[in-house]
Amino acid sequence: MKRYETLARDISDSILAGTLKCGDQLPSVRVASTSRGVSPSTVFQAYYLLEAQGLIAGRERHGYFVVANGHGLSPVSTAAIPPRAEITTVDVSELVFEILASVGQRKVVPFGSAFPSPLLFPTAALARSMAEALPKQDRWSAVDTLASGLPALRREIALRYLINGQQINPDDIIITNGAMEALNLCLMAATKPGDAIVIESPCFYGALQALERLNLKAITVPTHAETGIDLVALEVALQEHRPSACWLMTNFQNPLGSSMSDEKKQALVNLLAAHEVPLIEDDVYGELYFDNLRPTPAKAYDRHGLVMHCGSFSKCLAPGYRIGWTVPGRLFRQVARLQLTTSLAASSPAQEALALYLSRGHYDHHLRMLRSTLAGNQRKMASAIARYFPAGTTAMEPAGGYFMWLKLPDSTNALQIQRLALEQDISLAPGPMFSPRRDFTNYIRLNYGHIWDEQAEAAVATLGHLISHRR
Amino acid sequence: MKRYETLARDISDSILAGTLKCGDQLPSVRVASTSRGVSPSTVFQAYYLLEAQGLIAGRERHGYFVVANGHGLSPVSTAAIPPRAEITTVDVSELVFEILASVGQRKVVPFGSAFPSPLLFPTAALARSMAEALPKQDRWSAVDTLASGLPALRREIALRYLINGQQINPDDIIITNGAMEALNLCLMAATKPGDAIVIESPCFYGALQALERLNLKAITVPTHAETGIDLVALEVALQEHRPSACWLMTNFQNPLGSSMSDEKKQALVNLLAAHEVPLIEDDVYGELYFDNLRPTPAKAYDRHGLVMHCGSFSKCLAPGYRIGWTVPGRLFRQVARLQLTTSLAASSPAQEALALYLSRGHYDHHLRMLRSTLAGNQRKMASAIARYFPAGTTAMEPAGGYFMWLKLPDSTNALQIQRLALEQDISLAPGPMFSPRRDFTNYIRLNYGHIWDEQAEAAVATLGHLISHRR
Repeated sequence: MKRYETLARDISDSILAGTLKCGDQLPSVRVASTSRGVSPSTVFQAYYLLEAQGLIAGRERHGYFVVANGHGLSPVSTAAIPPRAEITTVDVSELVFEILASVGQRKVVPFGSAFPSPLLFPTAALARSMAEALPKQDRWSAVDTLASGLPALRREIALRYLINGQQINPDDIIITNGAMEALNLCLMAATKPGDAIVIESPCFYGALQALERLNLKAITVPTHAETGIDLVALEVALQEHRPSACWLMTNFQNPLGSSMSDEKKQALVNLLAAHEVPLIEDDVYGELYFDNLRPTPAKAYDRHGLVMHCGSFSKCLAPGYRIGWTVPGRLFRQVARLQLTTSLAASSPAQEALALYLSRGHYDHHLRMLRSTLAGNQRKMASAIARYFPAGTTAMEPAGGYFMWLKLPDSTNALQIQRLALEQDISLAPGPMFSPRRDFTNYIRLNYGHIWDEQAEAAVATLGHLISHRR
Repeated sequence: MKRYETLARDISDSILAGTLKCGDQLPSVRVASTSRGVSPSTVFQAYYLLEAQGLIAGRERHGYFVVANGHGLSPVSTAAIPPRAEITTVDVSELVFEILASVGQRKVVPFGSAFPSPLLFPTAALARSMAEALPKQDRWSAVDTLASGLPALRREIALRYLINGQQINPDDIIITNGAMEALNLCLMAATKPGDAIVIESPCFYGALQALERLNLKAITVPTHAETGIDLVALEVALQEHRPSACWLMTNFQNPLGSSMSDEKKQALVNLLAAHEVPLIEDDVYGELYFDNLRPTPAKAYDRHGLVMHCGSFSKCLAPGYRIGWTVPGRLFRQVARLQLTTSLAASSPAQEALALYLSRGHYDHHLRMLRSTLAGNQRKMASAIARYFPAGTTAMEPAGGYFMWLKLPDSTNALQIQRLALEQDISLAPGPMFSPRRDFTNYIRLNYGHIWDEQAEAAVATLGHLISHRR
C-alpha cells in the first residue's frame, strides 16, 4: 500500500468508527503534513482519493470536510385507494423459466433482459484490479476467512453505507454469491415451510420462485407505480394473515420502477416493527438513481434489527462476479449459518478484485457514467414508445434503474405479444411473470439498459406495430 | 490461442467426441505436420500439451496413443457383519458450528481443519491464469452464459472425466459455487421436506446439516472403515424405509477414509437402480489418491441417469475460488432450475481462471506434488500416533485424502479431548460431529494435510498425553 493510501485508509477508518463525523473539517494539508510526517503531496493525494470515494468534499477556500452521511427527505407520496391483499400459493416458475430461456440469445434485442448491457461495465479496470490483488492475497484467507466474506470488502461496503448516511459495522455484513443468494438466505432464516410472506403486486419473479421452492404462501399487497407498496393494505394483511416476513423493493422496484418516499419507508419500518415482522429489503437498484442523491434504504430507519438489507454489485458494476451482500440485523447468526451449510462462501478472487477496485475510488466515477447512460436511454425509449405504441398505452418513467413498466391497451395479451416479438428476435418480460397468479396480462416490462441504437429504435417500432394489430 | 494450442484443442475435441478412442495411435509428427500444414515443432508442442493433460501418452519408438479411459479393478472388499440401519431426525448442527468456529484461528494447530494447507496450492499460477484470462473474457458471457457455467470450464471438466474413462457430455455438467452447493442442489432436486435419506454412519457433517435444514430424516447405514457402506444393511433400509435418495462418498470417505471397490460401486449402483433411488455421490477427494490410478466414481456404472456425481476444485486446487460441479443425470433440469432461483450461477472470473489453468496442462503436475506431500504427511502422522498415543488406539490409514480416523480407547470422551486440546491450541474433529445422534464418542478425525513440522509432531505428543491421562 502506498503512503497516501495508508493515510486515506487511516482517515476512512476514523470516519467508519465515528471518530470523524459528517461536517467535521479535516486538518489543512500543511497541518496534516506536519502531524503525520508525510509530504504535502501525500496528503493531497489521500484527500483526492477520499473525495473520489465520496467520503470527504473540498469547499473552496475552506478546506476538506467529511460528507459521508444522509440527505434530505423527498415529498410524501399521494395516497391511493387501497385494494385488499390476497393470499395465494405460487405457480409461476414454469412460465418464468420458459421466458428466461428465450432471452439468452445474442441476436435477440434484449428488452426482456434482467441485466444492463455488459458493455457498460468497467471490465478492463476490474481485470486490472484482479491482476493486482490476487498475487498479494493472503493465502490463508482462502480457507480461514471464508465465512461472511473478505474483511476488506466488507469494510468497503460499510463505507458505501456511510456515504449514504448509515453507520453499518463491517462485521454485520455477510458477503454472498450475488443478491439472489442473500435474499434466499434471509427468506430461509425468517420462515419455515407453509408460512405466508408479504410480497408486492407486481413483484420480482425471483421472489415468486423462491416462495414456490420453499413452499411458502404469498400475500400479495397492491403496489403503486409511483409510490410503492400500499401501507393501508399492508396493515390489513399483517393483521389478517400474520406473515413471517415481508419481501419488497423500496427503490426502483422491479418491475414498476417505483420508489417509496423516506417518510413512507419510515412508516413501513415502524408498521412492520409493531407486528415484529422482518423486512427483507431488496435494494439492488439503489445505486442507479438519476437524481442527485442515492435514495435511502428502509434499513436506515431500522431500530430493532428487523430489516434485512440486501445489495449487490451485479446490476451496477460486475454482473458475472456474483458478489452481493446482506446486513441481516438480528437474524445475522441464522443467515451466516445457513450460508455455511448451503454454499459455504462467495468466491474469493471476485471479492479481492472488488475490494481493491472500490478502495481506489473508481466506483463513483463509473456509476456517474452508468447512470447518465441509463437516464439518456430511458428518454430515448420513452420517446420511441410515444411515437410507435398505440393510444391507450401508459408508461412509467422511473427515477432510476433500467426498467420501464408499460400498461398496454386493455385487450392486449402480453404473453401473445411476447411470443410474436420473439419470432422477430425481440425479447420482453410479460406482466404475468411478475405475479403468483399470472395477472397483469396487458402489461410488459422493457429493459432500456442496453446500447441504444437504430436496432433498438426499430424494435420499439416493431413492438408498437405488433401491439396495435394483435389485440 | 497459439497454433499448437489450437491443434491440441482439435485433437482433444476429437477424443471428447469419441472420434479418437483409447488406444488409437495419433499420426506421426511428420504426417501430422504435413496434413495440418504446421511445422513439426507445433505438432510436438501440441502432443506435449496433450500428454501433460493426461489425454495421450508417448511410447518409445511407437509414437503417441490416446490413453484417456478407465483402468483395472481393485480387489473385492471383505464382508462384515451387517448391523441394521437406523432412521432418525438430525440434531447435530449446533455442535458442528461450535467446533468449526474453534478451528478458524491461525495460531491453532489445524488437525480439525476441513481443508489442506493453503500453502500446498498453486496460488501464483492460478493468479497468472486469472490475469491472462480476464482481459480476454467475452463481455457478454458475464450475463448470457451464466446458467450452468462457462462452456470452456465444462469442457475441461469433461476431459478430466475422460482421462478417468468416463464419457461425460460438457452439456450435462452444471458448475456450482463449490461442491457444497452442488450437493445441496442435488438433495433439493431429489427430495421434499419430511422424506428420509440414506446417509453413511459415520458421515460428513455437511450432509447432516443439509438434512437438518431441509427437514429430512436420516437413515444411517453402517459404513466400514476399509470398504465403505454396508450393502446388506443398505438393502434392508431401502426395503423398510423407502428413502428418496442416498448420499454418500465412494472414495476416501470423510471421516473414515474408506473407499469402495469397483465391484462394490457397481453393486451399489445396481441396487439403488433396482429401487429407483438416486445416488448423490460426493467425490471431492477422488483426485487425492496415493496409488497409481484415480479411483472410479460410482457414476461410471450409472446406466439410468440416477447417479448425481459431485466434484470440486476446493480440496485439490483452489479452495477460495468456490468452484464445484455436478453431473446430475436425469435430474439435470431440476438442479439447473434450482440453481437459477437460489444463487443464479458461480463466479465467472474463478471459472475463467480455472478453465485456462486446466487447458494448459498444469493440473496433473500440481496434483502429483500434492498427493506425494499428503501421502508423506500421513506416514509421519501415523508414526507419531504410534509413538505418542496410548495402547488401545487404532487408526485407519486411507489410500488417499488427508484425514485419519482414530478409535481411541473405549472410555475416552472425544468431546472432552477436543476441548482440552483447544486450550492447548490444537484443533481436532471429534466423532460425534459425524453422526445425527452424536455417536462415535471415542473417535476423532485428524487432518494431516498441513505442513508437517516440529509443531505438528509436538501437537500429536500433546494429544497422546491428553488421551492417556483424561479418559
